[in-house]
Amino acid sequence: MEKYKVFFQPQGESIEVFKGTTVMQAMRDIGIDFDFPCGGEKKCGKCRVRILGEIQLACFTEVHSDMAVETFSVHATHHKTLLSVAERAVEIEPHITKKYVAVKKPSLGEHQSEWKHFIDAVYESTATDHTATDRQIPILQKLPQMLRANSYQLTAVTQGSEVLDIEAADTTKLLLGMAFDIGTTTIVGYLVDLYTGRELCVVSTINPQVKFGADVITRSNYAAGQENDFKLMHDVLMKAMNQLIAEATEKSAVSSEAIYVVTVVGNTCMHHLFLGLTPQYISKAPYIPTISQAIEINAANFSIAMNKSGKILVLPNIAGFVGADTVGVLLATEMKKYADIKLMIDIGTNGEIALGSKDRLFTCSAAAGPAFEGAQISSGMRGAVGAIDHIIFGEKLEYSVIGGGRPQGLCGSGLLDGVAGLVQLGMIDKRGRFLSPEKITNPKAAVFKRNIIEHHGEKAFLLVDHPSTSHGNLICITQKDIRELQVAKGAIAAGIKILIEKYGIKTEDITEVLLAGAFGNYLNPSSACRIGLIPKELEGKIKMVGNAAGTGAKIALLSATEYKEADAIAAFVEFIELASDPNFSTIFARSTYFSC
Amino acid sequence: MEKYKVFFQPQGESIEVFKGTTVMQAMRDIGIDFDFPCGGEKKCGKCRVRILGEIQLACFTEVHSDMAVETFSVHATHHKTLLSVAERAVEIEPHITKKYVAVKKPSLGEHQSEWKHFIDAVYESTATDHTATDRQIPILQKLPQMLRANSYQLTAVTQGSEVLDIEAADTTKLLLGMAFDIGTTTIVGYLVDLYTGRELCVVSTINPQVKFGADVITRSNYAAGQENDFKLMHDVLMKAMNQLIAEATEKSAVSSEAIYVVTVVGNTCMHHLFLGLTPQYISKAPYIPTISQAIEINAANFSIAMNKSGKILVLPNIAGFVGADTVGVLLATEMKKYADIKLMIDIGTNGEIALGSKDRLFTCSAAAGPAFEGAQISSGMRGAVGAIDHIIFGEKLEYSVIGGGRPQGLCGSGLLDGVAGLVQLGMIDKRGRFLSPEKITNPKAAVFKRNIIEHHGEKAFLLVDHPSTSHGNLICITQKDIRELQVAKGAIAAGIKILIEKYGIKTEDITEVLLAGAFGNYLNPSSACRIGLIPKELEGKIKMVGNAAGTGAKIALLSATEYKEADAIAAFVEFIELASDPNFSTIFARSTYFSC
Repeated sequence: MEKYKVFFQPQGESIEVFKGTTVMQAMRDIGIDFDFPCGGEKKCGKCRVRILGEIQLACFTEVHSDMAVETFSVHATHHKTLLSVAERAVEIEPHITKKYVAVKKPSLGEHQSEWKHFIDAVYESTATDHTATDRQIPILQKLPQMLRANSYQLTAVTQGSEVLDIEAADTTKLLLGMAFDIGTTTIVGYLVDLYTGRELCVVSTINPQVKFGADVITRSNYAAGQENDFKLMHDVLMKAMNQLIAEATEKSAVSSEAIYVVTVVGNTCMHHLFLGLTPQYISKAPYIPTISQAIEINAANFSIAMNKSGKILVLPNIAGFVGADTVGVLLATEMKKYADIKLMIDIGTNGEIALGSKDRLFTCSAAAGPAFEGAQISSGMRGAVGAIDHIIFGEKLEYSVIGGGRPQGLCGSGLLDGVAGLVQLGMIDKRGRFLSPEKITNPKAAVFKRNIIEHHGEKAFLLVDHPSTSHGNLICITQKDIRELQVAKGAIAAGIKILIEKYGIKTEDITEVLLAGAFGNYLNPSSACRIGLIPKELEGKIKMVGNAAGTGAKIALLSATEYKEADAIAAFVEFIELASDPNFSTIFARSTYFSC
Repeated sequence: MEKYKVFFQPQGESIEVFKGTTVMQAMRDIGIDFDFPCGGEKKCGKCRVRILGEIQLACFTEVHSDMAVETFSVHATHHKTLLSVAERAVEIEPHITKKYVAVKKPSLGEHQSEWKHFIDAVYESTATDHTATDRQIPILQKLPQMLRANSYQLTAVTQGSEVLDIEAADTTKLLLGMAFDIGTTTIVGYLVDLYTGRELCVVSTINPQVKFGADVITRSNYAAGQENDFKLMHDVLMKAMNQLIAEATEKSAVSSEAIYVVTVVGNTCMHHLFLGLTPQYISKAPYIPTISQAIEINAANFSIAMNKSGKILVLPNIAGFVGADTVGVLLATEMKKYADIKLMIDIGTNGEIALGSKDRLFTCSAAAGPAFEGAQISSGMRGAVGAIDHIIFGEKLEYSVIGGGRPQGLCGSGLLDGVAGLVQLGMIDKRGRFLSPEKITNPKAAVFKRNIIEHHGEKAFLLVDHPSTSHGNLICITQKDIRELQVAKGAIAAGIKILIEKYGIKTEDITEVLLAGAFGNYLNPSSACRIGLIPKELEGKIKMVGNAAGTGAKIALLSATEYKEADAIAAFVEFIELASDPNFSTIFARSTYFSC
């Protein structure tokens, strides 16, 4: 039977399937995370994909030739945040290990301590020097009794040459870890079995600090206010993380006592608040963090609900606005390992950009503002249920709504598609201004001319009229919305341009564009290139890497060597301060334009 | 003018003085710690010394030839415990150091953290890797503010490559330490300026644990009782140590916050109780400690009243009954450094004995029992005010009383002198039994025959009749008292014999006998040799080394290298378990005899 190749965008993955296989089946075979609300029963009509520019339903469409399939729907479980991603292989080498040992029972004439006998059994050698500090006192307090109560057999919990705890009986297979990605908006936690490497559960929650401000600048300012404001932000963060641990351990039917290692990534502000440090100095020139290097915390001295003998490992920062989350992305994507030059973009209120290879790696932060998050947009909203996340200008206007149902607003990826469509149809000029109907010449635009309306005294493009929305108000893209998007995309684009210039390469030399983070994974790459957010030359090289920051945290959790590599990455990366580039203003202004 | 040499015993020191100089002046010139109650005014008659076997007063006696002077009086300040001793030179190399640094003020375009700038300033290098843990979080919490408030100049408190704290302004000269010797009966603390090496103050107190039992066995048993009994003993110990710190810092007009390092020695039982570990397993076969190796404690995690960023360093043990105090003695006496073989005896309820040189070093514990402490002796008492501490059988019976005045009882060194005298005069046989008057043939004993009395149904030697004592009861040495002393001296003598045998040397090969501890420093060496506590062959080689355990703690406090040497000593020493020697019982029984 004949086989055809199906190529999926934006995943950049392909699979060979037998003739007549449905696209849905091909997607399932290749493991693409896609939402089939009716379970593939051909009832709901939600599994829309684009093939040869036409919208099709993946469940109906059969493969009868090689084809390219564009998936742009949002997985239902992804309506709040990006949880799991395709990940690279990691050799398991946990920070903390367990060993069940038989300790020599001492006899008269011996003078070596119980601790020495125990250590000799754990390390199978009498030579190694093992420090003892106050951390070992709780162990020493129970060691003699536990040896006698357990026939001199115990499980030792160790980290390198340090014994962290002892447990009665053989508990060697019970060794869990949790990786945290603390985002400004969302906290994601991955509960992982460190013995098998298996992910037991992924949990997420809104960062409760949002009540102190949506973005890091507001929170930094808040922290600078009253004496203990940043401590309060630290406390609510701890509470939220502990709730995630409770949720994950309950769902997985394990005890939080079995969690011995926690890794943490987050932007520099979240990083500082996690540690209980004020982030106030990060948001003031010269924007430097209080600390960047990796920090190892004894769980006994920190209020995370885990085994008190365990360790919390905080990945390093790079700069005030390039945090441990970016280090996580770089660890997950291994940009430092390869000879070919890659571009990484993690788009958010602060976009982090990295460019380089094993020879040199540049990074910068671009102050995009909140447009991509749907904030300060007339009909804007976060990428939650009810948000229009994708728009297609076909024979008529089509859009998809997260979670289905009537739309409530427009999230960043929807705004991106909308403006990209207006640019493509020649309905706005390169400065982003709506053209008057007579100047719109593209025949494909004819049908959309009537959507250009006056809204609260400014021009706007009507997306959904009031009878079709969930709240009865219309949803549109205003002239101001377009300007906001221009500022956002201009900041990112300028950052990319400056990095490319400083690196001394041509755009075409870039072999791959890695889009990290929630927004980067939901946006339509062609829209992003259309508006100039990403250089057009790179459209075919775009690859979504999911929540790579979280993946980095998970990799650092699974492997002590990879955790060390995070430190090496942070030390290797060269930080470029865009604001100190003399041409920044010019490049930024030019980058806000559209090339029509 | 002619000069003569005066040789002092038991100090083993000599000095050349001009003809006619008083012995008192010679003692003052050479720095012998001796009590002249009337200040040398020739009024009190207390400054007794022995010259050519005759008792003389040091203040009257002039030097008119070379002479040997035996000093056996007790310094008044020594009536409770041994505080200061002659010490060897130690190169100051404190564990914790301070440095006043100017930190680089960052400018725009820099991305290195404040911590990195600070570390670079402290270590004058950008290369070194400095770990950051939760211990640094309190520093990070105040670093940015303190940098800004102090023109980017701070004092860094460091231990090797770890920064422990930061202080505003230049506090580099304020760096104190305290060395503790936790004895079963007495706790001694030495407050030392780590910057100059100067000892500011010595303080001591009764170990409040005495209420839980006079000796370590009773305390171990107490600890094995209720759940938290050993914790209670830990708590009262902490309290007593903190009171000593308060006393020492108040006397020296310094703050306890200036104490950054504390070193601790003690026998294994005290060591465990200090750490909050139960000592109950030490007193049961096979008598092994829970831990022996050196322990470094972060002051923040321990209730010692010192700077919370400081360190508490606990010296290592050797065995269940050879503790960190013995390691302190070995560190102070440097037995491991020299080629010639020395014998060290620290006499107490448990006598610790060490024999050896740089080639090999043996140690053992001899269960002497409480006789040397004056316990379980009919007229026995501790070496406190009112105790007869020395007895001389001259033409009549002479004795000295601690603190002067009427005697109240007999302490260990007095008992030793008394029994030694009875042995020398042939009034008791080699088994320790009083001879009947007709069998006493020594003419010098004639005058003392009438002192042999019946007391509560057993034979006894009357020392002080009831009208001359402070309480109106007579003070005597009974047959049972002699037996108690025989057991005590037999244990020590057997230990010495077994070590010498195992070492494969002859007694004469020993070049020096070092007597450590309070009792060892008060006893009359010739009495000790007379009763066979110390081999007679070694009488001329005896040297008092004072409270060498405390000196060891102080040396370890002043020098990180010496502290490491303590670990090397503990690892080097070979522990000999006397009880497991098949000939122990025979040797012990024979050692209880007197060789008359």
